[in-house]
Amino acid sequence: MRLQLRTWPEVETYLKTSRGIIMPIGSTEQHGPNGLIGTDAICAEHIAWGVGEATGALVAPNIGVGMAAHHMEFAGTMTLRPSTLMLVIRDYVTALAEHGFQRFLFVNGHGGNIATVRAAFQEIHAELRAAWGPSAPDIRCKVISWWENESVHKLSRELFGASEGSHATPSEVSVVQYLYPGHIKTAPLDPPTAPSSMFYDARDYRRRFPDGRIGSNPGLATPEHGKRLYDAAVAALADKYCAFVNEE
Amino acid sequence: MRLQLRTWPEVETYLKTSRGIIMPIGSTEQHGPNGLIGTDAICAEHIAWGVGEATGALVAPNIGVGMAAHHMEFAGTMTLRPSTLMLVIRDYVTALAEHGFQRFLFVNGHGGNIATVRAAFQEIHAELRAAWGPSAPDIRCKVISWWENESVHKLSRELFGASEGSHATPSEVSVVQYLYPGHIKTAPLDPPTAPSSMFYDARDYRRRFPDGRIGSNPGLATPEHGKRLYDAAVAALADKYCAFVNEE
Amino acid sequence: MRLQLRTWPEVETYLKTSRGIIMPIGSTEQHGPNGLIGTDAICAEHIAWGVGEATGALVAPNIGVGMAAHHMEFAGTMTLRPSTLMLVIRDYVTALAEHGFQRFLFVNGHGGNIATVRAAFQEIHAELRAAWGPSAPDIRCKVISWWENESVHKLSRELFGASEGSHATPSEVSVVQYLYPGHIKTAPLDPPTAPSSMFYDARDYRRRFPDGRIGSNPGLATPEHGKRLYDAAVAALADKYCAFVNEE
Amino acid sequence: MRLQLRTWPEVETYLKTSRGIIMPIGSTEQHGPNGLIGTDAICAEHIAWGVGEATGALVAPNIGVGMAAHHMEFAGTMTLRPSTLMLVIRDYVTALAEHGFQRFLFVNGHGGNIATVRAAFQEIHAELRAAWGPSAPDIRCKVISWWENESVHKLSRELFGASEGSHATPSEVSVVQYLYPGHIKTAPLDPPTAPSSMFYDARDYRRRFPDGRIGSNPGLATPEHGKRLYDAAVAALADKYCAFVNEE
Amino acid sequence: MRLQLRTWPEVETYLKTSRGIIMPIGSTEQHGPNGLIGTDAICAEHIAWGVGEATGALVAPNIGVGMAAHHMEFAGTMTLRPSTLMLVIRDYVTALAEHGFQRFLFVNGHGGNIATVRAAFQEIHAELRAAWGPSAPDIRCKVISWWENESVHKLSRELFGASEGSHATPSEVSVVQYLYPGHIKTAPLDPPTAPSSMFYDARDYRRRFPDGRIGSNPGLATPEHGKRLYDAAVAALADKYCAFVNEE
Amino acid sequence: MRLQLRTWPEVETYLKTSRGIIMPIGSTEQHGPNGLIGTDAICAEHIAWGVGEATGALVAPNIGVGMAAHHMEFAGTMTLRPSTLMLVIRDYVTALAEHGFQRFLFVNGHGGNIATVRAAFQEIHAELRAAWGPSAPDIRCKVISWWENESVHKLSRELFGASEGSHATPSEVSVVQYLYPGHIKTAPLDPPTAPSSMFYDARDYRRRFPDGRIGSNPGLATPEHGKRLYDAAVAALADKYCAFVNEE
Repeated sequence: MRLQLRTWPEVETYLKTSRGIIMPIGSTEQHGPNGLIGTDAICAEHIAWGVGEATGALVAPNIGVGMAAHHMEFAGTMTLRPSTLMLVIRDYVTALAEHGFQRFLFVNGHGGNIATVRAAFQEIHAELRAAWGPSAPDIRCKVISWWENESVHKLSRELFGASEGSHATPSEVSVVQYLYPGHIKTAPLDPPTAPSSMFYDARDYRRRFPDGRIGSNPGLATPEHGKRLYDAAVAALADKYCAFVNEE
Repeated sequence: MRLQLRTWPEVETYLKTSRGIIMPIGSTEQHGPNGLIGTDAICAEHIAWGVGEATGALVAPNIGVGMAAHHMEFAGTMTLRPSTLMLVIRDYVTALAEHGFQRFLFVNGHGGNIATVRAAFQEIHAELRAAWGPSAPDIRCKVISWWENESVHKLSRELFGASEGSHATPSEVSVVQYLYPGHIKTAPLDPPTAPSSMFYDARDYRRRFPDGRIGSNPGLATPEHGKRLYDAAVAALADKYCAFVNEE
Repeated sequence: MRLQLRTWPEVETYLKTSRGIIMPIGSTEQHGPNGLIGTDAICAEHIAWGVGEATGALVAPNIGVGMAAHHMEFAGTMTLRPSTLMLVIRDYVTALAEHGFQRFLFVNGHGGNIATVRAAFQEIHAELRAAWGPSAPDIRCKVISWWENESVHKLSRELFGASEGSHATPSEVSVVQYLYPGHIKTAPLDPPTAPSSMFYDARDYRRRFPDGRIGSNPGLATPEHGKRLYDAAVAALADKYCAFVNEE
Repeated sequence: MRLQLRTWPEVETYLKTSRGIIMPIGSTEQHGPNGLIGTDAICAEHIAWGVGEATGALVAPNIGVGMAAHHMEFAGTMTLRPSTLMLVIRDYVTALAEHGFQRFLFVNGHGGNIATVRAAFQEIHAELRAAWGPSAPDIRCKVISWWENESVHKLSRELFGASEGSHATPSEVSVVQYLYPGHIKTAPLDPPTAPSSMFYDARDYRRRFPDGRIGSNPGLATPEHGKRLYDAAVAALADKYCAFVNEE
Repeated sequence: MRLQLRTWPEVETYLKTSRGIIMPIGSTEQHGPNGLIGTDAICAEHIAWGVGEATGALVAPNIGVGMAAHHMEFAGTMTLRPSTLMLVIRDYVTALAEHGFQRFLFVNGHGGNIATVRAAFQEIHAELRAAWGPSAPDIRCKVISWWENESVHKLSRELFGASEGSHATPSEVSVVQYLYPGHIKTAPLDPPTAPSSMFYDARDYRRRFPDGRIGSNPGLATPEHGKRLYDAAVAALADKYCAFVNEE
Repeated sequence: MRLQLRTWPEVETYLKTSRGIIMPIGSTEQHGPNGLIGTDAICAEHIAWGVGEATGALVAPNIGVGMAAHHMEFAGTMTLRPSTLMLVIRDYVTALAEHGFQRFLFVNGHGGNIATVRAAFQEIHAELRAAWGPSAPDIRCKVISWWENESVHKLSRELFGASEGSHATPSEVSVVQYLYPGHIKTAPLDPPTAPSSMFYDARDYRRRFPDGRIGSNPGLATPEHGKRLYDAAVAALADKYCAFVNEE
């Protein structure tokens, strides 16, 4: 049910019975010595596709580069400025809203996106109100990260305990290993579980987390764990999507 | 050689021997009754991956939503405003330039992107000059559409003649059929070959081209033709990439 | 220790021993039938002043109008668009950074600001990096809402239990009653404790929460409770400020 | 009559009989060796409050940081870029206009704001016209500096003669001493009356006016003079406000 | 000495002995029943050329469309938004500054431009400071309207007295008649001298001044008066230019 | 038929029978050792005037500074950033559209403008659609460079053959010599015909084309050739204008 794999008459038909759409958003940023740069983009996109299949919902194209300014000291990281990402989200949502879509569930793969995504939602509401006043379309946007649900959370804890950490986690690395079994990387992880703390800008990040990981041991990742996490995420988000589009 | 399937240390290694990167850019817009909405995005991305494999070049994440404002009267079309797309390109290029990339070959799947992409290149040069003066990095950006080469052009003409048209062409539909054989659509095309003319805004477009096609008969598309076109495009663009990164 | 009540030579002297500053940020928005429109602005500003006195830190001028787009269906509410608020924060921080300030603790009075404030911090880092590269100043920005600490949280729960709610809370109304005893308002609250749920845009907000409150009974507010909450907040934030400026 | 000290139902009631509002705007910038950094913000805000009391008009929150780019060589000065300040004014005015306010009298405390404020008014008119055409709201904005009236002008001349100067004037310093008697500063002023000329950017300003004053001797300031000036300003502006809201 | 009539090597030579340049800025807006829409643009451009000849200074291309939002109810009026005009001025000045120009005298033909032009100057200073810090180029910008000098002022008063008014004045119409004798228009002016007052937005302007004039009787205009005014303006501004570039 | 030489009532009359207007756009940039910096601006403006006379169409004021970022290594070149130029074009078109103009033929003098001009057209369509939806005005914008027609092309080839080149061409230099016979410059051209290639940014441009010319020998220019080219361009564009405004 990827929007990109449909024709326009098919979308027209879809809109007769649903005004909901799933919006994957990830990031293209370092994920430690053995995590792929596309980890967050891949997780968001594939889990969104899974939710689309489970629910019959359309899935918009992935926003594969997100807000990763704090990872910019590591080669290969890409980032949109928050102000750019807000415009991208504004354009995605308002284009789809012109066709009649009104319920936008953003399936997120990167914690660093959330503030900007939420700011973008408010910007959209403010812009539509400024342009259309009381006749603005009734748009609802919601963002959920794929790990933000009890079943994934519980499974991560069960599988990896305190080694889950918060960046380049064994959970997300596992999901990617499951989805791209031909691209499983190994690399020395020293220490096995990375240090953990908060951080400020990109230089500060690099100083605190020299190999890019935060609090995690992605050496524990396996494709089998990835499958379980993926399935749990899809199931949980499918429920959330249905609740969202049926909300009054 | 997708950037997203690499780790940051691998990118660091890559940069020791190359400063080139391939940037796919497509569009998510109606492609007539039997063409997929993702046609341009899919062609750009897959051909870019092919070129990456042929040359060993890294391929950045796809810009899957481009400038398609003139297709907005057809359901499912998405578009970035030109001003937004310019910022996206600015952010992609400047992020990668921070790591040392300096040669950016944009492999384009949508004619409607070209003006904005070129304007973006100039904006990038102007911004870097304003910020850094004579110490600005030596960035070179080039955009080539995948059909802009003698071998693809000749093959299209040979396969489809005057029915190639200029939007929802049998060539691009064929390439997508080859890449996504499970998503081949059929639909009545009336007339078989669509009318052709120039156009202005989205309403004007819809008035002139009621089913979205311009001058084309995508009913002639086949996956076999698609494979030939894909191979020709990859080969031609691989040559162009090598010439580009080796230019003095 | 308000910056505005100092002279420039005094600030020059201050900067010889400290590079920290407190940045109050509130909002000007409806707070239900008996809450003042300036509730969030007043709380943020006065608590920031208290923290300044307790720690000897300078306090910048209040950002009294924040991101309150979702309250716009109630008369008197003011809002900055997220994109505007980001520029304001950018200008505040970069102006102060030119003089040598490097540690910015935002004392926040409005949950609706947080996403935008965090996006702004990343925008600042990205802009400074784009302009200055490795010689960008070492800026650290942090945002804490005045109720985000164990002692205030506990006190609120003890005083108001489930009637605290999440907008126009008896806690914030109490603090304002303590600070502006001449402006205590009474109004019928029907039902005494307002309904609670999440919400989307301004119209949706008004539909769900017809008098503006969410989940709260601000009829329980008293100036005495306000004083206790104020003192608790100042003490907790003073500790946090000291920890922040002394962080490595 | 501060907007922030009202509830939303009170504002709703106010709008039944008046569509006018007072908008204080100041600056946070150096005011010489003995003038407070908040001088312009304090004068604008307190005089606006006085006018509000005298006329029954609502007073919006202060814009406490204005356009002070030319003072940036002195520690503690803050500034918004003109483009940012224009957006802030746009957001303030359009938010209030949504509720029905239509007459905006900006009470200004800083000469350096005026050009930007006036440009902002035109930007607002242009934006509303672009969005709403003939159904745009009938907005009127006017800016008056508190010293721009015959009575204050005469009093300043009488009290300080040629030592009034044009920045860090004894008049504004007096008003602040009256309003904040606990924060009266003394500092050597050498020469007693500062040099005077026009100037360009911040570096040029510092070169010409090494201690920040232009043409003034703020050593002559007293709280008693301040009271007289404050009263004169409030009376004059109250008249102007009434004339403004009653204009045809 | 128009820049556009020089070659680049000639400009390189010029810069060896001067860093000054004259920047004409006008407007394209209604000028009453018998005034040309280009009045302000024509006056600014031609007087700037005259000053260039008198002083040997280079003259940049005219900014022929200015800030005329308040004239938009009259056919043919064009306007830049203030925010756009600020960017245009920013781009003009910074482009020329890259070559070494540092003294920019804006010769203005339209009162409505002034606020925006001044805001633009501050924006330029702020941007250069943000990008370059202490190594920013030493730019000085100044704006003078062609009638802002004692000799033109006196002559206008002598020729037209109270019928000069403030928009579509006999002075400016005379100058254009002198410069474009083939385009002298006649039209009934009723009343001969137009009403005068301040005004707010475009609709308000049209309501107050139904034929576009403010306080003027342009029926008194003659090409002979125009020549005298033109000569006086050129002489006065030539003096001001020399003083400006020689200022310390 | 220059708009600037008309009165507003004349424009009102014009709009009763035509909704078309000609928009000249040029550039202010180096044109080699003997070409004037204003070459592109002068050609566009004068040819537009000629077309206006031939067709009775109004001609808007020239956009004399275009997108010339790649020429910035040569003294005297001016440029707007693409993003600025897009706003200028947006403001020009939307201001005129308010009065009822709907057909905008941009007569272009500089190849480097085209991408940005086309991006601007799409931005305008997108903005109007966002603000007005189905009731947006029916705007059509088209850009044609003055040499883009068979008769000029043929004449250039006949007159200059392979020495025409692509920047600082003998054709454009001839046109300017014809229009400004008092400003014909001579300079050594070494080699007589400049090298030719593509290029990237301004530094790259200067390195490849040290005197600014690309592939041309402007030493062949004469005012007589210029007259022939000018006449051919005016005739060709007059035809195109008539076809454009009469298109269905």
